[in-house]
Amino acid sequence: MENQNKPLIIRTIEGKKEERIPIWMMRQAGRHLPEYKELRARNKSFLDFCYAPAAAAEATLQPLRRYDIDAAIIFSDILVIPHAMGQFVDFKEGIGPVLEPIREITELRKLDTSKIITRLNPVYEALGRVKEKLNSEQALLGFCGAPWTLATYIIQGKGGDRNDAKCFAYQNPQFMAQLFDILIEALAIHLDAQLKAGANAVQIFESWAEDLSDLAFNEWVIAPTKKLVARLKELNPDAKIIGFPRGASHRLKLYHSQTGVNAVGMDISCDIFKTREEIGNEICLQGNLDPFALVAGGEYLEKSVNHILDCARLGPHIFNLGHGIVPQTPIANVEAMIKLIRG
Amino acid sequence: MENQNKPLIIRTIEGKKEERIPIWMMRQAGRHLPEYKELRARNKSFLDFCYAPAAAAEATLQPLRRYDIDAAIIFSDILVIPHAMGQFVDFKEGIGPVLEPIREITELRKLDTSKIITRLNPVYEALGRVKEKLNSEQALLGFCGAPWTLATYIIQGKGGDRNDAKCFAYQNPQFMAQLFDILIEALAIHLDAQLKAGANAVQIFESWAEDLSDLAFNEWVIAPTKKLVARLKELNPDAKIIGFPRGASHRLKLYHSQTGVNAVGMDISCDIFKTREEIGNEICLQGNLDPFALVAGGEYLEKSVNHILDCARLGPHIFNLGHGIVPQTPIANVEAMIKLIRG
Repeated sequence: MENQNKPLIIRTIEGKKEERIPIWMMRQAGRHLPEYKELRARNKSFLDFCYAPAAAAEATLQPLRRYDIDAAIIFSDILVIPHAMGQFVDFKEGIGPVLEPIREITELRKLDTSKIITRLNPVYEALGRVKEKLNSEQALLGFCGAPWTLATYIIQGKGGDRNDAKCFAYQNPQFMAQLFDILIEALAIHLDAQLKAGANAVQIFESWAEDLSDLAFNEWVIAPTKKLVARLKELNPDAKIIGFPRGASHRLKLYHSQTGVNAVGMDISCDIFKTREEIGNEICLQGNLDPFALVAGGEYLEKSVNHILDCARLGPHIFNLGHGIVPQTPIANVEAMIKLIRG
Repeated sequence: MENQNKPLIIRTIEGKKEERIPIWMMRQAGRHLPEYKELRARNKSFLDFCYAPAAAAEATLQPLRRYDIDAAIIFSDILVIPHAMGQFVDFKEGIGPVLEPIREITELRKLDTSKIITRLNPVYEALGRVKEKLNSEQALLGFCGAPWTLATYIIQGKGGDRNDAKCFAYQNPQFMAQLFDILIEALAIHLDAQLKAGANAVQIFESWAEDLSDLAFNEWVIAPTKKLVARLKELNPDAKIIGFPRGASHRLKLYHSQTGVNAVGMDISCDIFKTREEIGNEICLQGNLDPFALVAGGEYLEKSVNHILDCARLGPHIFNLGHGIVPQTPIANVEAMIKLIRG
């Protein structure tokens, strides 16, 4: 009975296999939509846009007006967390995020988790606004960056390759332990607040799970994510969590069983049938269309979507991309993809 | 009896497990060595340097003078192949390789495999010079880029992400089929010539096996590599081949069983115990130390090396990095790594 009130994606995360395959797309709210570009043009800075509840809510809702999809994901950014904790963060046009790097153990005091709820209140307010507009089958998703992914930005002060952060992390285990503790608390607070504000589930984006050795993956991805999941479930026992460790296709079973996330996202290069076999037919998987197959369109898009649909028949599956949708994606190709899935 | 005459690495590739674990490092000849930088400073262009037999042979031998390692790999570049076939290729300082992109099916005629042996004669001459200096336990390795990896450069005209090449390949299957046919023939000729010039084995570098969907991996990596291996073994039935599909850690068993390579390279993020279990204890694996653990040195380097050595006890294993050694690597750390392996 209670189950019937949960949106399709949440039932799927819980392991139910339904007739309709739920769909959403990473970065679905954003630059591939002309209506987003228009909205964004009226707002100067990217962070100000994230912190404007009306604008963020509008951007979040735009893809649902256009496409027959099953979730809204709040328009925000993973770097609101270091920003809300007091680190300098800016988004430079054409360059990407720039932070004032933190690399001294004494500087970790600068990161203040007590301000998160107040500073990110506009994000929670935006979630509330979106929630009001959704029907009972549409899910609202919150998200955060995973501890290691955020650590790379905090240490390096920028995106790009993580070589600098890796070297630093190899040499500074005590710094890393303290930073992870701060991030775990901060992220649990932020995810819990998103759930309280109306999100039905949250996704943890481990965007930089690639190029990590067995040891590094265990210490920097598995261990802190496990603690984050445990802490969130302490605050919110019914929290539904999708973990997405991009670049760790071969470790999804390990990641799922060790961290305690409810569902697992598969990136572009995931061997999806092998993953389904390893993880069994009860766990919800999500993914994994190549965003560039969606740009290309045509026959290859059709083959690629059908390949995923074949796998999706084996167990609970949320159709998604294997990485964020890119700005040059033709809207007609997204429509064709959805039509193929809806059959 | 014949076996005794083969160098240690070759016996390991053939599946023999010996007391001594063979070692070499990708990019071992190059910019982390001061003697290389000195040699290189006397030679203007990178391609001219590759095509100067004395200089290339000297660069190839330098790491063997300094370190207790078991192979020399010819100093060259994967892009000598498009260059030798007539495509414009240049290496710009601080930018990397720049090619005149080929994206029209009619332009594929420009790629002329008949000139490879003549144009790359200096590479084969360098191999002969190196061979004379090695003892019977030291292997000489040749190499090439895999068809898909070379195709990305040929199509895009540059390195970096492969999104452009992927989109193009999705939309132009006929172009890709013809380009792969040309590359397979060209690479078989080049690998065979390297073996005839003295190489004991060759490595196929699929540097861009990452971010490929199941379908793309099968069509662009597995299928052309399988044909290349078959064609090379036609020309040279005893050819020993190491395949290194970087970014395809989860597909190594598939890659090995489908392509026919003799040994498989594991990249940084490979789950090495899982790979050993999947592939069995008879097949030679190679890898996979993180080059940035080697930069960092210290305790983490020791833990990382020992983790690989634990796995190396299970089957034939060539100790290597999971990616090329980087210029900032301290020589003392390489020495410490070798000392740990030698026990």
